[in-house]
Amino acid sequence: MSLLVTGTIGIDTVETPTGKVDGVLGGSAAYFAVAASLLAPVRLVGVVGDDLPPRFLEVFKNRSIDTAGLEIRRGAKTFQWHGKYLDDINERETLRTDLNVVGEAPPRIPDSFRDSRFLFLANTHPAIQRRFIGQLAGPRLVVCDTMNLWIDGFRDDLLQTLAAVHGVVLNDGEARMLAGEKNLVRAGRAILGLGPQFAVIKKGEHGAMLVTPDELFVLPAIPCADVVDPTGAGDSFAGGMMGYLAATGRTDVEAVKTGLAYGTCIASITIEGYSLDALRAAERQALDARLVQLRNLVKFE
Amino acid sequence: MSLLVTGTIGIDTVETPTGKVDGVLGGSAAYFAVAASLLAPVRLVGVVGDDLPPRFLEVFKNRSIDTAGLEIRRGAKTFQWHGKYLDDINERETLRTDLNVVGEAPPRIPDSFRDSRFLFLANTHPAIQRRFIGQLAGPRLVVCDTMNLWIDGFRDDLLQTLAAVHGVVLNDGEARMLAGEKNLVRAGRAILGLGPQFAVIKKGEHGAMLVTPDELFVLPAIPCADVVDPTGAGDSFAGGMMGYLAATGRTDVEAVKTGLAYGTCIASITIEGYSLDALRAAERQALDARLVQLRNLVKFE
Repeated sequence: MSLLVTGTIGIDTVETPTGKVDGVLGGSAAYFAVAASLLAPVRLVGVVGDDLPPRFLEVFKNRSIDTAGLEIRRGAKTFQWHGKYLDDINERETLRTDLNVVGEAPPRIPDSFRDSRFLFLANTHPAIQRRFIGQLAGPRLVVCDTMNLWIDGFRDDLLQTLAAVHGVVLNDGEARMLAGEKNLVRAGRAILGLGPQFAVIKKGEHGAMLVTPDELFVLPAIPCADVVDPTGAGDSFAGGMMGYLAATGRTDVEAVKTGLAYGTCIASITIEGYSLDALRAAERQALDARLVQLRNLVKFE
Repeated sequence: MSLLVTGTIGIDTVETPTGKVDGVLGGSAAYFAVAASLLAPVRLVGVVGDDLPPRFLEVFKNRSIDTAGLEIRRGAKTFQWHGKYLDDINERETLRTDLNVVGEAPPRIPDSFRDSRFLFLANTHPAIQRRFIGQLAGPRLVVCDTMNLWIDGFRDDLLQTLAAVHGVVLNDGEARMLAGEKNLVRAGRAILGLGPQFAVIKKGEHGAMLVTPDELFVLPAIPCADVVDPTGAGDSFAGGMMGYLAATGRTDVEAVKTGLAYGTCIASITIEGYSLDALRAAERQALDARLVQLRNLVKFE
């Protein structure tokens, strides 16, 4: 079934303990779309400035990604992010964020996309996320991401958005902050009390946990001896999860679990290269092989 | 097959965000022995002072724990530890450690225990660990724990011990410190280069990873909404693992994986009470039920 993603497409500068890339493709919707397109057709909604090098958009071509919702706004500048991973590559600091066009009027969902049944709202202002939901005719599954900025400063807006989605994907620190609760199980359950039917808590190198009213499900990350660049791991994780659900047309808990498994596998590919290098080079076959690897990783007699 | 454990039996004072217990039973060998005894008979070797309240030893009675190797040394004082868990209960600080009798001459392995085939050397000075190995007739599987104190200050001694064991169990911080490597997969593999055939890296609330020359195996911890006291989780984890191996008489990698699963389950019981309260109350049936829970926790279509 049709899968729509809204989020950022940006220009990243990334420093790691072993290297640096300057002015490369990034952004939540870019990672999500390429990841999800390994499993299902994707409709991309976002806005960039006319400073974005046209070659950056090549990554969406020759894939099942419909870019009819990608606006290139004249005279505007593209979202930029500069981050640095510390000696422990699981920790990072943001050195600079220039919202640019992302701080202006949001893009519109094209009429041809309004019948989308699966919707992923990557991290942005919760009021804008809500407006996107309202532009769809009748989505079957709406899942949003969020971040500390909105949890801290726009809580009322975020609560309204959480009441309007079926699921939420966020990292462990954000879950604790949103729920005001250190214990992750309790935090997850508190978040369900805000509206969503399920919460997916991403724990970086430690994997991810699914919390539903009746169940807990946990998967470790696939261990990686050579993490090149963790940027986009969380967004491609969400892409894998939503891609699997859209491909199967399912929204039941068992399907969400398998979605987490696909997300785990795709994230493990993303971190093996800078920017979208490893992700864009991956094929469905490699993803399926990694799913076998994940099954074996947690399998005991 | 016969399982022998050497380690501390101590008097703990533990503070958590929600409570405090003062002067309760603790120590690596106490947690290990009670945990392992759910699966296999255990031979306990350790030394305490004559200040240890006799009721503390009640925990070993009416279980398959042979205390012939437990020395009560006259005029000596028992090992004491005072720890405090922080607001995030996964972090703790040690407020005081009094080695007392543990800093004096180590206990001897009784003649009747010398034919033990499975040996677990809980954390102590690596030279003492090595002497224990030498006292056994021909152990089939020797596994040791260690800690930052020995990694940092007695590295040569520790390297000699690691060259003499089949497996090592240590936490993530210790693995990184021992290997001088931030990445856990690389750290585990570097540790294998020091001698052991396998390394089990404990990650607290995030579970545990098994590293062998050919394989990686990862299990999450069973999520717990009400962690009362994490003390002894790692030692009872090791007890569950070694108890399973001794009970089955196996030392192959698949058995070690199942051992990790049992260890994961027992640790999840231990943290539900202060000191050994929850662990000692557990029965084999409860452990088997938790194994089913763990299987379901990571199961996807």
